[in-house]
Amino acid sequence: MNGAQALMKTLADAGINVCFSNPGTSEMHFVAALDSEPRMRAVLTLFEGVATGAADGYARMAGTPAATLLHLGCGLGNGLANLHNARKGKVPVLNIIGDHATYHVPLDAQLQSDIETVARNVSPGFVRTARSTASLCSDAVDAITCARGLPGQVATLILPADVSWGEGGTPCPPLAAPAPPVADDACIAAIVDAIRSGEPCAFLLGGQALLEPALLDAARIAAHSAVKLFCEVFPTRLPRGAGLPAIERIAYLAELASVQLRDTRHLILVDAKSPVSFFAYPGKKSELVPEGCHVHTLATPAQDAAASLVKLVAALGAGNTPAPLQAPQRPTTPRGKLTAAKVCKAVGALLPDNAIIIDEAITSGLLLGVMTQGAPRHDLITLTGGAIGQGLPNAVGAAIACPDRPVIALIGDGSAMYTIQALWTLAREQLNVTAIIFNNASYSVLNVELDRVGAGQAGTKARAQLDLHGPVLDFQQLAQGMGVLAVRTDTAAGFNKAMSNALHTPGPHLIEAMVPESLSGAKRRLLPWMLRAMPRLPPAVALALKRKIAP
Amino acid sequence: MNGAQALMKTLADAGINVCFSNPGTSEMHFVAALDSEPRMRAVLTLFEGVATGAADGYARMAGTPAATLLHLGCGLGNGLANLHNARKGKVPVLNIIGDHATYHVPLDAQLQSDIETVARNVSPGFVRTARSTASLCSDAVDAITCARGLPGQVATLILPADVSWGEGGTPCPPLAAPAPPVADDACIAAIVDAIRSGEPCAFLLGGQALLEPALLDAARIAAHSAVKLFCEVFPTRLPRGAGLPAIERIAYLAELASVQLRDTRHLILVDAKSPVSFFAYPGKKSELVPEGCHVHTLATPAQDAAASLVKLVAALGAGNTPAPLQAPQRPTTPRGKLTAAKVCKAVGALLPDNAIIIDEAITSGLLLGVMTQGAPRHDLITLTGGAIGQGLPNAVGAAIACPDRPVIALIGDGSAMYTIQALWTLAREQLNVTAIIFNNASYSVLNVELDRVGAGQAGTKARAQLDLHGPVLDFQQLAQGMGVLAVRTDTAAGFNKAMSNALHTPGPHLIEAMVPESLSGAKRRLLPWMLRAMPRLPPAVALALKRKIAP
Repeated sequence: MNGAQALMKTLADAGINVCFSNPGTSEMHFVAALDSEPRMRAVLTLFEGVATGAADGYARMAGTPAATLLHLGCGLGNGLANLHNARKGKVPVLNIIGDHATYHVPLDAQLQSDIETVARNVSPGFVRTARSTASLCSDAVDAITCARGLPGQVATLILPADVSWGEGGTPCPPLAAPAPPVADDACIAAIVDAIRSGEPCAFLLGGQALLEPALLDAARIAAHSAVKLFCEVFPTRLPRGAGLPAIERIAYLAELASVQLRDTRHLILVDAKSPVSFFAYPGKKSELVPEGCHVHTLATPAQDAAASLVKLVAALGAGNTPAPLQAPQRPTTPRGKLTAAKVCKAVGALLPDNAIIIDEAITSGLLLGVMTQGAPRHDLITLTGGAIGQGLPNAVGAAIACPDRPVIALIGDGSAMYTIQALWTLAREQLNVTAIIFNNASYSVLNVELDRVGAGQAGTKARAQLDLHGPVLDFQQLAQGMGVLAVRTDTAAGFNKAMSNALHTPGPHLIEAMVPESLSGAKRRLLPWMLRAMPRLPPAVALALKRKIAP
Repeated sequence: MNGAQALMKTLADAGINVCFSNPGTSEMHFVAALDSEPRMRAVLTLFEGVATGAADGYARMAGTPAATLLHLGCGLGNGLANLHNARKGKVPVLNIIGDHATYHVPLDAQLQSDIETVARNVSPGFVRTARSTASLCSDAVDAITCARGLPGQVATLILPADVSWGEGGTPCPPLAAPAPPVADDACIAAIVDAIRSGEPCAFLLGGQALLEPALLDAARIAAHSAVKLFCEVFPTRLPRGAGLPAIERIAYLAELASVQLRDTRHLILVDAKSPVSFFAYPGKKSELVPEGCHVHTLATPAQDAAASLVKLVAALGAGNTPAPLQAPQRPTTPRGKLTAAKVCKAVGALLPDNAIIIDEAITSGLLLGVMTQGAPRHDLITLTGGAIGQGLPNAVGAAIACPDRPVIALIGDGSAMYTIQALWTLAREQLNVTAIIFNNASYSVLNVELDRVGAGQAGTKARAQLDLHGPVLDFQQLAQGMGVLAVRTDTAAGFNKAMSNALHTPGPHLIEAMVPESLSGAKRRLLPWMLRAMPRLPPAVALALKRKIAP
């Protein structure tokens, strides 16, 4: 048994059954070994960013990691952005990076580069180059154990070609994960004190705390003790919709987040970090926690958030309080000329049961949360690390993890282009994904940001950097070029029909929604002015304005 | 004047007049500053790998670096593969990587990652984070000086948002580059001795040694003293065709390269490294220099190759020997059903004067060298670092560097998909590029490599990893979706017509050549057998066979 075959068995024994790949010569023995292991499914991608984003989406939904198979440092580089998103989302991924044979490395051949250095950017917890065929599988078990720990991590195992082709591979059994620690009594007592102090308290939930049953326990406490319920701005996976607790996401715009948090005196983190603004802005604070607010940590990402919440429920005596659940409620289907808001409305109106929504719609998705709040229960996946190009690859992975659930990916035109190659894998694997591309021919969010950072009156060259006209992309043709059925529409009726059709026909579909920018003209010019005014407005007015801007 | 404005002036003063960009919020002040500097042209790309590959192609043809503008560690990651190709090709590139404001970094916001660590992979010689607005421009001058040195390098300047927006920027003048050293007398004497020893000698030229007048001087010596003339396997830029010296490239397949080098007793490196095989193969040597062959270095990549060759010409008394030049000669246009070989033939038949050929055709381009050997003089750009996805971005950069020269890029279908977004920039900038995509629906080279690495009989899953059927990509639709005129053809007549039309009509064109795999069926099965037989064949037979496989 060679190294690659032993590794393949080790992966399958550990429950890693999918490998998202883009191989080269140095990975050929691993590729050949695929046929030695019936439990392993290999999914070919045409670009490494698709492979890594698919592994991310897969693990978010499957709860267990997939492997990637990438070709040396350059392949890893191409996959880095979506591994970054996985890292920030605390999502487990096992990277297998093929390398030159150990004795070939010092010769500095064309593809030679420092792989470990690149990997450290996304795998601070585990980067290892397998040194021998005999020890390869124990290296792999260490990597898997690290990836699966709490918090989930991107673990990178570098696999030299001669370690892969060498004979004497010995599969290793998986290691049992140690039970993660739970909040200790002192921590619970301090938080109980804070909650009973009568001062305004809020939970900020992230990661594991957003999944059931943790989410229900948090909602129970919220109802029992009048604690507000916030969710981190970009949740890894958020179950929501009718029959689940409604939870308010922290806003992307720092000014709005400050309004949300303004009255909070005790912020209780549960597998979430203390909120900071996405970017820095001249003259503005980056930390969003208001002055005088105490930050408590019920569970760090390395702790068991669900068990810690159970303990807190008991300490507060909230066990008999039911979690308030969102009632079913849907918008009607939209009419007239298509806008981004109407696309969100149609998604809310037509969302099937048990869907997975992937939101990389940036400015075009502003109303998505409101429009789907009472729709049938679904999971929401968002852009955890801010590296755009996540949505379509995530859809590949989510659909492979959950073949019986419809996946609906809402993607901005700019974002879609980073990893547009994902469409081919959607077609090849015939995945049940409806990709909705908002074509407003603009990096719309950057037009907003250009104003917000105070870069002054932008000239022709600057504006051209944010503009995707000349030529306007045609996503219908791009999709058809990769074998995905596609429709382009600029009417609500056309969109409704295309969406119904996509949801009722197996396989992938793309709907290109031709829409104007959500924030354009007067709205965009007013926005920085409104944001600046926020801190001086009375709280109720500010909150109402906040809901108007980002509901 | 803020930091960004001062930086913009510093770049322009140093002759950096093009910036290939894909900006985000942290780069907004740099973007706004574009309009403050009329000498700076900004070229927007939809994916960072296009920006970096364009900067590479630009510098290869312009001889001076362009800047990139990328968004934090993830943007750099997306651009890494083509920066790797630039590094391996010793091509100067100035990376400007936007970062969070310095005070925002410790907050670990969503897009925070370790940029310097990623950058070291491609910029071992220069990675610096600008620490203040006051010192930004002297940092930039250091970066430019490093990039422009010998050898050319990828220099990475990390630009925090507050350094960019801060007031008090002070432009700095460029530094004069020190004159690079020339081969010393002892080195010249040793090489003269070797050449006069009567033992078989060969030059291996790379980098600067392949440009005029160095190339002509090497050819002069070759003719005068019976020295063979080899060129590295993947030259950064090779002027060739009628009226220039013909030079034999080292073969990609190690077995064939060994045949080329077998009789050499003195290998003289001029801005080239001692040849090694591209990948390692079980039981085969990675170093290609035959046993008993002495390796001499006339000029390292840090030395002046041209001046060193001038000195050697004088020492050998070869000054009056004319360099043998390639006579004009062209194939006829092909007929019948289209094949990859016929595409190469058509390119040879129709190549216009002063073209730039970019070769990322992998197996489909096997005959390109032969078919264009006597075509009108042109420059050839190749895949220096082996990271595929280079060709289309290189075409963007080359066309911007040389707006009056036709650019013809030959790209494999697999390769094209890594950076297919380049087509949009070709359309937006209306560049005179003819992109020829070989659609054989396969990672054809990997089918060959799978056999060569001895991975055994591949099963269904393994073969599927190398196969691009189901669905077959439609590059005509992909091109049209990005605004590029495109034709798909499977006949030689159709190809000839499409190529003539593309060359006679301004702006970008794509020709999708539907071809069978160059190495398929019996040919591919025979190849590993022939390669294994090579060392046991008589030299003349081996050489004839080598020419048959890779002419």
